Amino acid sequence: MRSAAPDNAQSYTLLERRFREIGDLRHAQAMLGWDEAVMMPVGGGRRRGDVLATIAGLVHRQITSTETGDLIAAAIDEGGLDDWQQANLREIERSRVRATALPVDLVVELSRAGTRCEQLWRVARGANDWPAIVEPLGRLLDLTRQMAVALGEACGLAPYDALIDRYQPGVDCALIDPIFDELRAFLPSFTEEVIARRTKPRPLRGPFPRERQEALARDLMQKVGFDFEHGRLDTSHHPFCGGDPDDTRITTRYDENDFLSSLLAVLHETGHAMYQQGLPKAWRGLPVGEASGMAVHESQSLLMEMQVCRGREFLEFAAPIVGRHFDAPRDAAEWSVDNLYLASTQVARGLIRVDADEVTYPLHVILRYELERALIAGDLSLREVPGVWDAKMRHYLGRTTLGDDRDGCMQDVHWYAGLFGYFPTYTLGAVIAAQLFATVRTRAPAAVDAIRHGDFAPLLTWLRTHVHGRARSVSANQMLVEATGAPLGTAAFKAHLAARYGA
Amino acid sequence: MRSAAPDNAQSYTLLERRFREIGDLRHAQAMLGWDEAVMMPVGGGRRRGDVLATIAGLVHRQITSTETGDLIAAAIDEGGLDDWQQANLREIERSRVRATALPVDLVVELSRAGTRCEQLWRVARGANDWPAIVEPLGRLLDLTRQMAVALGEACGLAPYDALIDRYQPGVDCALIDPIFDELRAFLPSFTEEVIARRTKPRPLRGPFPRERQEALARDLMQKVGFDFEHGRLDTSHHPFCGGDPDDTRITTRYDENDFLSSLLAVLHETGHAMYQQGLPKAWRGLPVGEASGMAVHESQSLLMEMQVCRGREFLEFAAPIVGRHFDAPRDAAEWSVDNLYLASTQVARGLIRVDADEVTYPLHVILRYELERALIAGDLSLREVPGVWDAKMRHYLGRTTLGDDRDGCMQDVHWYAGLFGYFPTYTLGAVIAAQLFATVRTRAPAAVDAIRHGDFAPLLTWLRTHVHGRARSVSANQMLVEATGAPLGTAAFKAHLAARYGA
Repeated sequence: MRSAAPDNAQSYTLLERRFREIGDLRHAQAMLGWDEAVMMPVGGGRRRGDVLATIAGLVHRQITSTETGDLIAAAIDEGGLDDWQQANLREIERSRVRATALPVDLVVELSRAGTRCEQLWRVARGANDWPAIVEPLGRLLDLTRQMAVALGEACGLAPYDALIDRYQPGVDCALIDPIFDELRAFLPSFTEEVIARRTKPRPLRGPFPRERQEALARDLMQKVGFDFEHGRLDTSHHPFCGGDPDDTRITTRYDENDFLSSLLAVLHETGHAMYQQGLPKAWRGLPVGEASGMAVHESQSLLMEMQVCRGREFLEFAAPIVGRHFDAPRDAAEWSVDNLYLASTQVARGLIRVDADEVTYPLHVILRYELERALIAGDLSLREVPGVWDAKMRHYLGRTTLGDDRDGCMQDVHWYAGLFGYFPTYTLGAVIAAQLFATVRTRAPAAVDAIRHGDFAPLLTWLRTHVHGRARSVSANQMLVEATGAPLGTAAFKAHLAARYGA
Repeated sequence: MRSAAPDNAQSYTLLERRFREIGDLRHAQAMLGWDEAVMMPVGGGRRRGDVLATIAGLVHRQITSTETGDLIAAAIDEGGLDDWQQANLREIERSRVRATALPVDLVVELSRAGTRCEQLWRVARGANDWPAIVEPLGRLLDLTRQMAVALGEACGLAPYDALIDRYQPGVDCALIDPIFDELRAFLPSFTEEVIARRTKPRPLRGPFPRERQEALARDLMQKVGFDFEHGRLDTSHHPFCGGDPDDTRITTRYDENDFLSSLLAVLHETGHAMYQQGLPKAWRGLPVGEASGMAVHESQSLLMEMQVCRGREFLEFAAPIVGRHFDAPRDAAEWSVDNLYLASTQVARGLIRVDADEVTYPLHVILRYELERALIAGDLSLREVPGVWDAKMRHYLGRTTLGDDRDGCMQDVHWYAGLFGYFPTYTLGAVIAAQLFATVRTRAPAAVDAIRHGDFAPLLTWLRTHVHGRARSVSANQMLVEATGAPLGTAAFKAHLAARYGA
């Protein structure tokens, strides 16, 4: 059915219009989700869950409708699209294949069950009450498994691979396993060496008043390149980046005894935010204009946090600013670049993933990867999770003492929000970040040097060109090859750890 | 086509389900609207306008769809509904008649133009730049007139009446005119007398730190009956009440030299909020479960602010609490009940409606009513508005000096957000509030007396029974007749002013 329409890409244009509307609904989901975590009073929780589920259902019905299918077929037939339009059409098809694999009732129930379970988890975690959350989590896991099987069948993927693919298209266990194997082999002994050898910093003594921490955070966010005309900083239980490219919302939390943890969380989320704010304006709200995936997203937050902000160049610039915000005495040794660098690069066998340093972080991720893979495969029951969690903490992190479930298998929101398959993207992001920043160091050394003077523009320009601006126009792998000259590999990450923490 | 379905009200049940989904989209509109005014960075404005317009279009398409029409017809045919279900069906039909009168493109454009014009108004008002806003306002007015004509034809109403009906069903100019005539005849001379005679309060000297004002506001909100598990207090340029019954969001603004203005604004919005929170739980998200209309809504805020919180009973309870929050010296004359009462009941010929006392407030409303009625009728052009505004300020308020447009025709958001027909509900609300509270005084005097002791439960119970809990199950007029024994009239309002400000 070749189109004889005089207007060349008429169907494609209608399709784009339809997907801009879907993008508008996704904006509503993103903002209502942000509000749920940051603003909503608890009593609004159930209603909000219903609303988010209704919108999820609407999005699904729009993508799976006959009209959408016809428009896709006609647009393919029409031809005459440029590269970005073709990529957009490819992403639209991608989303349709995945949506049509799922019945709308399952999509709605997954949304509702995820919001509800997350709300219950907040209470259960506070009370360290694992038994209270097992049933809602079990129901959510069951729904997620149904989704994984259906998506897997539609895309020719194993169920768990189909979940990972939701967060980073093109990534599966076959790609992850060799990378994680290398890290499993290398990191436990490396961690031990670093802990034994690394100099402890002079203590930075608080209290650091919350308002001052916030003022410092805003100051550095702005200097690094966050656009406050298109974004906000707020407080939530866990730091995250939400919203959309025109209105990017990041959060942090404050500990009056430890400003570094909050500040680095802010800079981490700022990395996410700048990726979002740097997505191409012409493609706002359309599939090709979205972030490449969560591994690439995480590469941008970790490039900012780990590669840049915990590095010496940044600290040369930031140390006097940090000192000023806290009225630090001039020339005080604990506020020196050297000491802030040491404080920012300590390694410890901690319990908590979000507080982990970059050396042990992959071990936290590997633990979760193994557990969720087994959960989705049905090789592990939820009842076994706390015990297996603790055993793996002993094995990978070499912990002799362990915390309770609150700081164990209940510490992260992901599973309780239904985000199975998400965890591996953190470590893939760390590996990508190292690979990208090694390229910047080699090919654009002036951009690294400029950081010492608080000039982040050259770095941001590089990232906008090679990562942010590309959005989903190419695969993550193609983006990485074109940006760095090589596909994903651990060499740069290992070299970075060796350089920073000693071989 | 009588339904032979074994399940009696099958179509009605499907219709309810459909309207619960529409209610979910309205929740999204309400929350994204709140966010737009309270949280959103300016750069997010255009996208948010698009999103709200898309949702408005979706709501419209769902209400006007053939399926909805068929279900309504089948539900009427089926019968077997109880009173609330019948009222719900009536409200559903009402919304369908009005929606089908309008093309979807007009609905979408009205939403987008309203959001955009409001955003431009914020800037133009700040710059006192009337010429900058005339064009977008003209476009919005033009769209609104198209809507008014189409709605009027569908409902057998004059265009401006069709707009009023959007905010308070069943109210039109024929009902408003005699009431406003009485007020026009009585208030200007009454204002003059009161200003000449009323004792001035001893000054309450600030500064009143913002945090303390907020703590006081939260304290009194809670005592009065606001449910913080289902609501929030925030800051915005103009105080308002948004959100929904399970998650009611009110705002205020703080002036460090004048705590009373902010506090009474909070208590006003708390009246709105308690109405919202008191709507029947079983009918959440359905048309019959919504507030009766904006006149009744305003009656609840004004009953709380004007009748209760500016009254002696409340101040006997609140004065010591207010004093404590500001570390007022014990027995200081300016913090006495008498002085706070005087401070709360001053009358002045002010420029600003939202700062107006209850005596002059209706004159501000009448001015706007006359102007917008002429604008919709096409008897007045936008270019003439500033001049006519000033002339009417001289005429009704007896002002000899006038402010600039910022504090004249640009002071209120309503027109710039497309809310033509809304203003009369403020004064109808004041009249209803007086009539309801006079009934409480007569028939439930213990509820008034309990206020002296900070016990608001009897009053709230009365309001829940006679107003809040009835939602849209009956017309506003029937509610009022059943609650007070009489239809809407100015007697109680005039008696209230006479009692408080002297005959």
